[in-house]
Amino acid sequence: MVTQSAASTSNPSELVQPINKTAHEFDKTTLDALLARRFFFAPAFEIYGGVAGLYDYGPTGSALQANVLNEWRKHYIIEEDMLELDTTIMTLSEVLKTSGHVDKFADWMVKDVQTGEIFRADHLVEAVIEARLKGDKEARGVKDEPVVEEDDKKKKKKKNVKSVAIKLEDDVVADYESLLAQIDNYTGPELGELVRKHNIRNPATGNELSEPVEFNLMFESNIGPTGQIKGYLRPETAQGHFVNFARLLEFNNGKVPFASAQIGRSFRNEIAPRQGLLRVREFTMAEIEHYVDPLDKRHARFHEVKDVTLTLLPKDVQSEGRTETTRMTVGDAVAKKIVDNETLGYFLGRTQLFLEKIGIDPSRMRCRQHMANEMAHYAADCWDFEIQSSYGWIECVGCADRSAYDLTVHSIRTKQPLRVQQKLDQPRKVEKLDVQFDAKKFGMTFKKDATLIKETLLGLEKDKLQCIKDELASGTSSVRCADGKSYDITPDLVKIEPITVTEYMREFTPNVIEPSFGIGRILYSLLEHSYWAREQDKARGVLSLPSVVAPIKCLIVTISQDAELRAKIHEISRKMRRIGIASRVDDSSASIGKKYARNDELGTPFGCTVDFATIQKGTITLRERDSTNQLIGQVDDVIEVVDQLVKGTIDWSGASAKLESYSGVQDVEE
Amino acid sequence: MVTQSAASTSNPSELVQPINKTAHEFDKTTLDALLARRFFFAPAFEIYGGVAGLYDYGPTGSALQANVLNEWRKHYIIEEDMLELDTTIMTLSEVLKTSGHVDKFADWMVKDVQTGEIFRADHLVEAVIEARLKGDKEARGVKDEPVVEEDDKKKKKKKNVKSVAIKLEDDVVADYESLLAQIDNYTGPELGELVRKHNIRNPATGNELSEPVEFNLMFESNIGPTGQIKGYLRPETAQGHFVNFARLLEFNNGKVPFASAQIGRSFRNEIAPRQGLLRVREFTMAEIEHYVDPLDKRHARFHEVKDVTLTLLPKDVQSEGRTETTRMTVGDAVAKKIVDNETLGYFLGRTQLFLEKIGIDPSRMRCRQHMANEMAHYAADCWDFEIQSSYGWIECVGCADRSAYDLTVHSIRTKQPLRVQQKLDQPRKVEKLDVQFDAKKFGMTFKKDATLIKETLLGLEKDKLQCIKDELASGTSSVRCADGKSYDITPDLVKIEPITVTEYMREFTPNVIEPSFGIGRILYSLLEHSYWAREQDKARGVLSLPSVVAPIKCLIVTISQDAELRAKIHEISRKMRRIGIASRVDDSSASIGKKYARNDELGTPFGCTVDFATIQKGTITLRERDSTNQLIGQVDDVIEVVDQLVKGTIDWSGASAKLESYSGVQDVEE
Repeated sequence: MVTQSAASTSNPSELVQPINKTAHEFDKTTLDALLARRFFFAPAFEIYGGVAGLYDYGPTGSALQANVLNEWRKHYIIEEDMLELDTTIMTLSEVLKTSGHVDKFADWMVKDVQTGEIFRADHLVEAVIEARLKGDKEARGVKDEPVVEEDDKKKKKKKNVKSVAIKLEDDVVADYESLLAQIDNYTGPELGELVRKHNIRNPATGNELSEPVEFNLMFESNIGPTGQIKGYLRPETAQGHFVNFARLLEFNNGKVPFASAQIGRSFRNEIAPRQGLLRVREFTMAEIEHYVDPLDKRHARFHEVKDVTLTLLPKDVQSEGRTETTRMTVGDAVAKKIVDNETLGYFLGRTQLFLEKIGIDPSRMRCRQHMANEMAHYAADCWDFEIQSSYGWIECVGCADRSAYDLTVHSIRTKQPLRVQQKLDQPRKVEKLDVQFDAKKFGMTFKKDATLIKETLLGLEKDKLQCIKDELASGTSSVRCADGKSYDITPDLVKIEPITVTEYMREFTPNVIEPSFGIGRILYSLLEHSYWAREQDKARGVLSLPSVVAPIKCLIVTISQDAELRAKIHEISRKMRRIGIASRVDDSSASIGKKYARNDELGTPFGCTVDFATIQKGTITLRERDSTNQLIGQVDDVIEVVDQLVKGTIDWSGASAKLESYSGVQDVEE
Repeated sequence: MVTQSAASTSNPSELVQPINKTAHEFDKTTLDALLARRFFFAPAFEIYGGVAGLYDYGPTGSALQANVLNEWRKHYIIEEDMLELDTTIMTLSEVLKTSGHVDKFADWMVKDVQTGEIFRADHLVEAVIEARLKGDKEARGVKDEPVVEEDDKKKKKKKNVKSVAIKLEDDVVADYESLLAQIDNYTGPELGELVRKHNIRNPATGNELSEPVEFNLMFESNIGPTGQIKGYLRPETAQGHFVNFARLLEFNNGKVPFASAQIGRSFRNEIAPRQGLLRVREFTMAEIEHYVDPLDKRHARFHEVKDVTLTLLPKDVQSEGRTETTRMTVGDAVAKKIVDNETLGYFLGRTQLFLEKIGIDPSRMRCRQHMANEMAHYAADCWDFEIQSSYGWIECVGCADRSAYDLTVHSIRTKQPLRVQQKLDQPRKVEKLDVQFDAKKFGMTFKKDATLIKETLLGLEKDKLQCIKDELASGTSSVRCADGKSYDITPDLVKIEPITVTEYMREFTPNVIEPSFGIGRILYSLLEHSYWAREQDKARGVLSLPSVVAPIKCLIVTISQDAELRAKIHEISRKMRRIGIASRVDDSSASIGKKYARNDELGTPFGCTVDFATIQKGTITLRERDSTNQLIGQVDDVIEVVDQLVKGTIDWSGASAKLESYSGVQDVEE
């Protein structure tokens, strides 16, 4: 609460309390308490003991989420005329088999052979080795270095393992450090070998661990009463876009580029979720699939974002083991080929603007490029917007170039042409390479894989075909297919010859650029970035949410329980509701100061107070959350100013120009 | 398309084509074709052959749904300060065990013993018996009566079974008719008996059917890697509200009445879904749980809806086998106790207003009260808003009084007090009946059920307790518990004695009034109610959607491909976007008439046309979809009129007062 001495200050300029969020240490415990107490979110089925990785959003969290999604819809779907979709969560297993999720969307787990406790293998190995290195430092008397910002990305995966001060041999330390640097890179069997080699056990029991077993992260279920139709809860909304591509393309009159967009729930059955909203089993995503001509990835509105500055962490820097970032405009990043193309650059720029608009601190946001070994199985290139919070740097938005992967595999599997036909302005003679197959031999050699290999060969670009032709000239060549395997081919199976053809149409499978937003992660990061406490009242926090996303825009209170004043606040509330301002009346008997403090916790940016002057002169006061500054004016004038503040057409200094400043009644303590 | 003669008419008044949707027969085939062609919705995974009961919404369907949900949110959540929630779909099995869904949320199915084909037992019995009765009528030469509106509710459940003209004995006809009247009333074993008694077989194969087996309609899955935590996809959002009740009550400062609200997906694994969007396995619901004092179900805003007229079909009328409805105001219905209380009446009135606002035809909407035998296991009273479509009368909104059922069972199971404490203005002395147990005997007699019976007895009202006391005086009494069973109690187990106590607090479990909306069903009904075709162009339909829900509000076109005109439409589009009007540019080379017709199919209420006068005089024309009337004005004036039309602050006659009428360029055919 505000101290008495501050409350009795009468000079309004002294009431301005500049926000200095970083001046005091971030206190996660008090933020967590606030978020629970004011029901932003809570563990699902809490009264039943809860289930790890499942959370419910309460009234404040739901409103915050609805406002963020509403801004997202305006910023992307409406602004860019995207085609919105709403597809099913329950997904036919065959679709996810084709997309590769049934085979590859898995993590490795190990079991305590005695208790059956389950761990994610890579996380456990990492945690145990890190604890041993820490113990070594303690034994050597080396003080643990303060965590470098860029390094605490690792923290997000750490399971709490206590270190014991034991000195290690120098070569063991080097071995461990090299192991940790590659921890994202090991296969399951390799992790099993590490467990044996380094005698890694369950830290809690000391028991041995089982061999790593693959665990698919999709929730499985059966559709219909026969149990014969298998379904999965979608792990991403993207496949719902791709299977509808033909209809979407037709809706867009057969032309690319265009984008589809979808907001909805997805599910991942995490092995051992921790970290609150950052690693959950059910979450809201917002995904865009932007379809482009693979030969022309320019973007018509690129000029609008070319001057937006990004904080970049490219892959070549990371592969040298460094983590320093570079500030660069989108235009420069694309010109220098750090970001591959205009469309990818366009979405990075637009996303930077979006995240800033909803209140993410730009200094705690960076674009990190994926290294080759960590890319999802479908991705050709990928940049993550990472946001820093107390959990370290966390991926919150992924911008991936999924290439033509998904549309190609679905097209092959369903025999539906998921391709764009483009009429050429002029028919053109083209030198092509014609691929001919010895149908019988080819079929006998490759059996069930024959069609896939054939389609792949027929779909290759000319230079790639030329390479294969050259290789065949001297014997065997090979072709890599969408199933991830390479197949050897020989001249008796396939002949490649140059021919000249006249083309009237061009046909191609579009590439897909996918910005994919994890809404829960963004919300949690936003709450941390918005949270601070006033010097005078550290127990109660303030959430400095931008008014565009704040759950409630305006608090309406009276200074007393007088019936006439109480009637007035409900009248003001009705007026605000009519023009669409989400306001909240607090007609409880708490003090004004307490009412303000309660609403600072909710991030409510403005507050109107009714007092006896309202009856006598028709005025009310208007308070701004961060500065606690107050203005005064006629009821309707103040409502209009609030409306403009909420819509963002004026800011507080604009408001101060329209209304008188006020110093009569202050934030008083309860 | 509009015919040439109509197109050349130059008198604007003749351009007015009054809508007469009922004048021509409703053509479901052309509507279905329109909905597929313009991608309102389509079978999910269509390129994989689809799965019954799963549908994806395309850009038009998604936008329509988003607009309907947006209106819902404004009409209910914002207008009434409801506490919005966003809870998980994946639900711990224990929660749904407690709520009764694991045991009771099931349908009976039968199998063709040869082919394994599965049927919903009641639907199949009904279809076969109906077909036999129809065959009897054919054999008797009785013309099938035209379907009476009120009767075709049954149609929704019918599986297509062909009738064969075979005359039946008179007593068999009577038997069949009595069977059909009670079809919703049979248990599984009874259905099995009917199958045997009437020799009902699979109509397609003539094979025998298995005994009916219960099939739970919830999708099941496992949470986490051990397979030991069982989960279900929620069949309703309601349980997510109830398990959070304690937090919600605290958020509302411990007071009732208040309401929580949630929009989200739910799942029901239907045995054999047909009927498009009306019976699906995954659907969006919008549910309100309104918590009230069981002794005071008045509603503070009841006066606002008391004059709203409802079309009622009460249960006593139905139990007499009649289906005629009564038009009555909400006020009268509550005063006459046809609707039980103000709160239920309030939501019926509010829902009538909501459905009318989004465009449901009031003459095809009725409130039907549930008869005792068809009520859900948790409901104490229930009124359905049924909407008539080509599938008959379909439940689209259920308004149920769930009593204290859910909060009571969750409270008993979790031992959490889900109750409201109300401080009394004055302490009061009350004559009470004190219930005492012989703990040991009681426990030994009832074992695991002891706690439930004890809690139930302790929670009974005084008169009920007095009855039990009286019965115990002469021997045995019984108590009915929330598990649906009755337990006998005797004087050696329980003693009930009068005592006098002083009370300072009143404590009670709130009752819950639940309006629950099936959004997909409402959307489909709305599409049918909005659909018609112009006399001159029956092949292309018009969707007369209210502008508040129309996917796109305004079409922007030019009369030619001139570059200057094309630049103009994009400029107008930007202006509209800035003030939030969802508009769509059509700069294709199609004729104006064709462009209009295309957008009539999408339900776009307004169209702006740019022509050479736009360059010379700065004017554009404005067309209204239903009448095809046109107005003309300066660009900015027209945009302002469109804004007001979309916001609903003026209607078309208001627009006609602000702009000149126009007759220069008409809807011309392509």
